[in-house]
Amino acid sequence: MGRVTERRKVIRIRDGAVSTRPDTLVAEEPLEIRLNGKPLAITMRTPGDDFALAAGFLVSEGVLAERSDLQNIVYCAGATVDGSNTYNVVDVRTAPGVRVPDITLERNVYTTSSCGLCGKASLDAVRTTARWPIADTPPVRVTPELLADLPDRLRASQRVFDRTGGLHAAALFTEDGELVDVREDVGRHNAVDKLVGRAVQNGDLPLSRSVLLVSGRASFELAQKAVMAGIPVLAAVSAPSSLAVDLAAETGLTLVGFLRGSSMNVYAGEDRVALRAAAAQG
Amino acid sequence: MGRVTERRKVIRIRDGAVSTRPDTLVAEEPLEIRLNGKPLAITMRTPGDDFALAAGFLVSEGVLAERSDLQNIVYCAGATVDGSNTYNVVDVRTAPGVRVPDITLERNVYTTSSCGLCGKASLDAVRTTARWPIADTPPVRVTPELLADLPDRLRASQRVFDRTGGLHAAALFTEDGELVDVREDVGRHNAVDKLVGRAVQNGDLPLSRSVLLVSGRASFELAQKAVMAGIPVLAAVSAPSSLAVDLAAETGLTLVGFLRGSSMNVYAGEDRVALRAAAAQG
Repeated sequence: MGRVTERRKVIRIRDGAVSTRPDTLVAEEPLEIRLNGKPLAITMRTPGDDFALAAGFLVSEGVLAERSDLQNIVYCAGATVDGSNTYNVVDVRTAPGVRVPDITLERNVYTTSSCGLCGKASLDAVRTTARWPIADTPPVRVTPELLADLPDRLRASQRVFDRTGGLHAAALFTEDGELVDVREDVGRHNAVDKLVGRAVQNGDLPLSRSVLLVSGRASFELAQKAVMAGIPVLAAVSAPSSLAVDLAAETGLTLVGFLRGSSMNVYAGEDRVALRAAAAQG
Repeated sequence: MGRVTERRKVIRIRDGAVSTRPDTLVAEEPLEIRLNGKPLAITMRTPGDDFALAAGFLVSEGVLAERSDLQNIVYCAGATVDGSNTYNVVDVRTAPGVRVPDITLERNVYTTSSCGLCGKASLDAVRTTARWPIADTPPVRVTPELLADLPDRLRASQRVFDRTGGLHAAALFTEDGELVDVREDVGRHNAVDKLVGRAVQNGDLPLSRSVLLVSGRASFELAQKAVMAGIPVLAAVSAPSSLAVDLAAETGLTLVGFLRGSSMNVYAGEDRVALRAAAAQG
């Protein structure tokens, strides 16, 4: 439980020279998420922040939207044959009255809830389950200079990546570029779920004044997670997919990609990016 | 169907200068995989090679192991309300007599079949479902120089990445370093599933003389996919996770990580890497 890294022996080859030494690897273990006692999904994750991961996952799935929806989260004892606790099974109990979606195998939630049978259906599913429409009043405005600074601020606060090179990171910033929280995980979705889960646990949803930065690509599912948490700006260091851009355009999410140095691409929601100021400085 | 890229308008910001132009993005659409008519999983993928993706997914899940296990694969018509075909639902029919695992919500296959309640259970699950133990006789032997060349050979054959920057790639090489096949997808697992699926469709499993290269990290699930296809060598450009290394050590898979320039780390199965030759040259 909570082992973020593990040590393994490794044989290093550098320009033909061979040496053996211990190496630090990012830890990966399965986590089973149960909802009111019923198994819902298993994800491979880096141990730690498991309750936040489970809570954030359920925000993305449309089950939780605010702190009061949550009764409690516990590790399940007796999850193994010998009755010991592996700390790899968590049960999320919702408060009385919270509507839990009908989850069947045909709506295999982990990969499915976000997806219909076509891209359009996927977009519709997010729109109909979103409890927090993106509604920042007055609108969040960020300058290209502020956005350009975020990756460095994220890297400065990444603790594990430097040792393992094996982690995805996600960070929440204020609209003024101040780092609020950063999470690292072997799975890209998990890092975002941990951020959002911590926010719902703290009663901070919707995150309508926040900027979410992810260390890799912006897939549909990451854009979905931003939308479900009410986040108005998603910035990614790498490329977005077509469906992520479509979702951003439909929901009013500002989507920035290829955020590198002073360069970036704005794919949707450009009204939140202070473009004229940038052009004037150009 | 088959749209590997899509065009979207993008606002580019470069050192303060703002311009608008069309941009090429990697396409992302949901694919529902059905097994003998029963919905099994939905994955977000880049359209194209859908039958191979579905077949490879089922190799990883232990359902298919050779071409004769497969009866046919079709796109499902009538998958939408208006009865039109979205080309986003495929049905894989197994041959009579093929044992199909008992799939229930509690064994939520897409994320679960590989996972137990702890890392050890995950390793056990792969070992018990693997139809092709890694058994290369005589053992495959690769030199560090051969391994060091593979990323360049992969990049030279990546068609879409250069245009979008948004794709994961996976490639199969012979033990002599000859490129056999390369697949790109918005999802890292999908690229490997497409490779393995093509191989099972061609009657080429087990891939016991092959080297699998992946463009990113080596997670547990990618190592699992190599093992299930009988591949003896997995090389990754980035870091492996702890559980990927453990799986490799248990199953006899050679796992190479951080394959960059003439440098690499060997985490397991070092008997297949010609280390002495490398040291002699060092």
